[in-house]
Order: sequence, then structure tokens, then C-alpha cells
Amino acid sequence: MGNAMTDKPKRPEPDTPTSPKARGMKSHGKIAVSASIKPRALMTDTPRYAGVWTAKVITLFPSAFPGVLGESLTGRALKDGLWALEPIDLRPFGEGRHRNVDDTPAGGGAGMVLRADVLGQAIDTAQSGVTRDRAKWPILYMSPRGRPLDQAMARRFAACDGMTILCGRFEGVDERVLEEYEVEEVSLGDFVLTGGEIAAQALLDATVRLLPGVLGNEASTEEESFSAGLLEHPQYTRPATWRGRPIPEVLMSGHHGKIADWRREKSEQLTRERRPDLWESLRRNRDEDGAD
Amino acid sequence: MGNAMTDKPKRPEPDTPTSPKARGMKSHGKIAVSASIKPRALMTDTPRYAGVWTAKVITLFPSAFPGVLGESLTGRALKDGLWALEPIDLRPFGEGRHRNVDDTPAGGGAGMVLRADVLGQAIDTAQSGVTRDRAKWPILYMSPRGRPLDQAMARRFAACDGMTILCGRFEGVDERVLEEYEVEEVSLGDFVLTGGEIAAQALLDATVRLLPGVLGNEASTEEESFSAGLLEHPQYTRPATWRGRPIPEVLMSGHHGKIADWRREKSEQLTRERRPDLWESLRRNRDEDGAD
Repeated sequence: MGNAMTDKPKRPEPDTPTSPKARGMKSHGKIAVSASIKPRALMTDTPRYAGVWTAKVITLFPSAFPGVLGESLTGRALKDGLWALEPIDLRPFGEGRHRNVDDTPAGGGAGMVLRADVLGQAIDTAQSGVTRDRAKWPILYMSPRGRPLDQAMARRFAACDGMTILCGRFEGVDERVLEEYEVEEVSLGDFVLTGGEIAAQALLDATVRLLPGVLGNEASTEEESFSAGLLEHPQYTRPATWRGRPIPEVLMSGHHGKIADWRREKSEQLTRERRPDLWESLRRNRDEDGAD
Repeated sequence: MGNAMTDKPKRPEPDTPTSPKARGMKSHGKIAVSASIKPRALMTDTPRYAGVWTAKVITLFPSAFPGVLGESLTGRALKDGLWALEPIDLRPFGEGRHRNVDDTPAGGGAGMVLRADVLGQAIDTAQSGVTRDRAKWPILYMSPRGRPLDQAMARRFAACDGMTILCGRFEGVDERVLEEYEVEEVSLGDFVLTGGEIAAQALLDATVRLLPGVLGNEASTEEESFSAGLLEHPQYTRPATWRGRPIPEVLMSGHHGKIADWRREKSEQLTRERRPDLWESLRRNRDEDGAD
């Protein structure tokens, strides 16, 4: 784990967002793709994606990727080719000399709405050579209107061939794009962000760490605990006493059975106290299907 | 809005995380701070923070900040001094020649736990010169065990003088730190991330955009709609017809009353269909206190 942290962040070369030249080559680690504005024929997909889980991110801020995802476990996995990241700059798809991507809302109101025609071209480019089966390659839009992201969704996305994420800005996107492309809206929670980029990174982090080979042993118990639907029990490490606070005795006992019991009990207690909603749905699921 | 998008990303110079030299100066926009390992006297706080909402972020990846927060509205506000960001590199507070920040969990198990003594020193440094009143300056830890972030929390944080965010890694942090410093745990949702950095950025984005002067008119209606607890109604913009899909007629009618009714209706319909939980709690709140 220690050496992963000395990884230097890998950042893409920033494009000049307003220049049509930005339509050219982008490279991330071992993957280099041509983001041509012309959709390529479906059957000529680049073989370099074969078998590698790929995220395509349509954004006005391609240089914000991979960001934190370029560090630590996700960053090492990106360099090792365990997943691929293709940010697609929305700007070159814009209209006119200023490559406008947005316009005022129909019916009036503050703010700007991302245009359907501009987004449509970007999505067509992203999807060229990609399966049309949304179950294998979903198109996602990060939005507080969406279904709240949870661990089960992350698991589902990790089992896909890849995904395309649409990062909104301003007041949102033209609704017709969401209908036309059967876009799945995903929410990070009941709060408003200035754009979808950070939400996309959260979604990617949660998903990529579940891809085969990305995690070592490091986070496995955490994952197991959360998969059981319980909140994580308290953790302690050296020193044995810190500012007059000792590590709970049972954890120092070496008695594995008692330690497991204590942790389970603490997890259940925390879940009951802090997240009665989670506790309730856990009980309901247990009653319904016994295991899992 | 358009010119904000041509802003080049502002990134801090990356430190060498394992080097004690990393204790030196960091600069972000107009703010420069010395992250001395010795807590400064409480009364000699740097006056440059006076009145400016400040986020201190304790992280093993200080170069990941400001990241996306350096772009667009939040980035412009950072440059304009409407808020300040101080990433604090956890690494130099580590133990021994390798500046170890973590150790194996007491009681056994996979993964590593961030040490209480190491975190304690970093937090002391962050809090030097900062009010001890947690209501004015909370210390937050991003964790799936926490209270789920919502718009009301973001509003509460925006009304503080600032906040200190602890980004975890590995299996988590030593529980005693959370007790000692009355740390408030905040969750981004029921999923697991490789670290707290992306969650911290989401929290910061949601909070900073609510600070006075950060938002123009751009996102105001979105905020209003969400503040009312409803999901956002569909938005449309030019072209009037796209791929055979017209903009709904009412939005083209110019009849403001009908447009407002249509939007309200759509918002309510979406909320009922997609988020019965939200709809239910809205109804309950309305019954209880009439307005708000």
C-alpha cells in the first residue's frame, strides 16, 4: 500500500477547450484514442479496448480527469491497464465560432441548459464502436433527480463492459437527450453541485475499485462489512494508549471469536443508531430471502 | 458564465509526499500558508483568513486539490478570494524515516488504519488559530458511517467560519481521533470509495457554491427548486425540434402562469415517482410547520 501513495498524479495534457484542434488525440496512460467528431462505423471498434473496462466521460473540463482517480489504487490500476479512461471534451461539439454548448431554457428562467444537438453529437462519438446494449454499457447522467448511488449499483456497473458518463453544468441538460439515449440518471445525494464532474469521479472510484485485480487485500474487509449492509465497526491501531484513551481490551485479547463478536455487535449498534433506514431494509431483506 | 469555462485549471505544485521538506510553503491562489508542524499560539492566527470562509483538508494527496474545484464557479471564487483552501499533507506528520501514517488494525484483519497520534498532530496544526467552537468550525470525516450529506447540511457548513475535513484511506481512522476531537462523520452515500478525497470535494463544491457571491444567477432556480425539496422539472432549449422530438408546447406559449404550473406539476410528478421517500418527508414537513 505504501508505495502506491508515492505515485505521481497522472494528468492528461489540457486541451484548448475552445479550439476545434482539441478534436485531435488525447492520451491517458497506455490508451490513446482519436475523439473524431464523425462517428466511426460500429464494426471498426478499436481492439485496444477489448476486455478492458472503459469509462468515457463527456465533460467541459476534461483536464479535471483522472484527478484523484490518478492516485493510489485506482491510479495504479489505470497505469496497469486494468481500466481505461477516455474524457471527451464537450466544447469542440459546440455551435458556431464560440462553440456554444448551451442556450437559455425554453419557457424562461435563470441559467443555461446544455443543448440536445451538441450533446447528441458528443454521445454519438462516445458510443461509436460500443455495444448498443445499455445493460452492458450504460449511459449515465449525474443528477440529483437520479437514483441514489449505492454499492449494488457500483457492483452492477463494474460488471458492465464500460460506461459513458455525461457531466452536466448549469441548469441541466435538454430532457430530449435523456429520452433519446435511454440515459440512466444517477444521484450522489440530495444536494446540488456546480457540475457533474466530482459526482462522476465518485461513481468511477466506487466502481473501478470493484474491478478484478484493482483491490489487493487492503480494503477487502471494509467491502465485506459494507456488503453485509452494516456500517463499519470502530478501528484502532498503535499506540495502545493515546491521550489517556486505551484500545478496547477485547481487541488486545487475541481471542478471534470474541473479537469477531465485538465487531459484529458494534457494527449492528452503529447501524441501528445512525441509520435506522438501513437497519430496517436489512431486516426486511433477511426476512424475504434468508441469505445474501 | 461562458468565460468561466475557459479558465485554466489551477493546481498546486505537487509536494514530494515522503519528504520532510513537504512541511514548507503551499500556495493556492492568493492564499499562502505555512503548515508548520508546531501548533501556533491561538491568538496569532494569520489575519489573512479573517472573514474568509476557509476549508482545511487533511489528506495524503494534497496535489489532488483544488482539482475540479479550481474550475468554473468555485475556481473563480477561489481566485477572487471568496473562499480559501488549505490542503494539509498528512505525510510529514508520519512516524520514522518513512513517515508511516498507518498501522495494522488492533485485533487483526486486512488493511491498515490511520494512526491516532499522526492524525492528532495534523489536526492540531489545522486547528491552530481556529475557534474551538465546533458549531462555527466543524471537523468532518468523510465516511460511509456518517450522516448522509444533504442540502441542509451544506447550508449549515456554508454558514460556519470554515471547516476542517479529514480524508481517510485504507480501512479507516483510529476511532479515538473521532472521539477526542468531536469529529462529525459525513457520508456521501451507501457506497465505498478508495479514499475521502473525492467525497471531500463533493462536500466542498456543495458548500462553497452557497457562500455569498459565489453563484451568479446561473444556478439560482435549480437551488430554489431543490430547496423546496422537489426534484428538478425537465429543461429544454433550442432547437425547437430535435430528432423528431419537439419542445413541449406549453413552454413555447409565453404564458408564464401556465409554464410555472407545468414545471411545478412535473417536479411533483418526478419526485413522487422516483423518490417516494423524499415526497413523504416533504408532506410530513408541510403538515408540521406549514411553510419552509
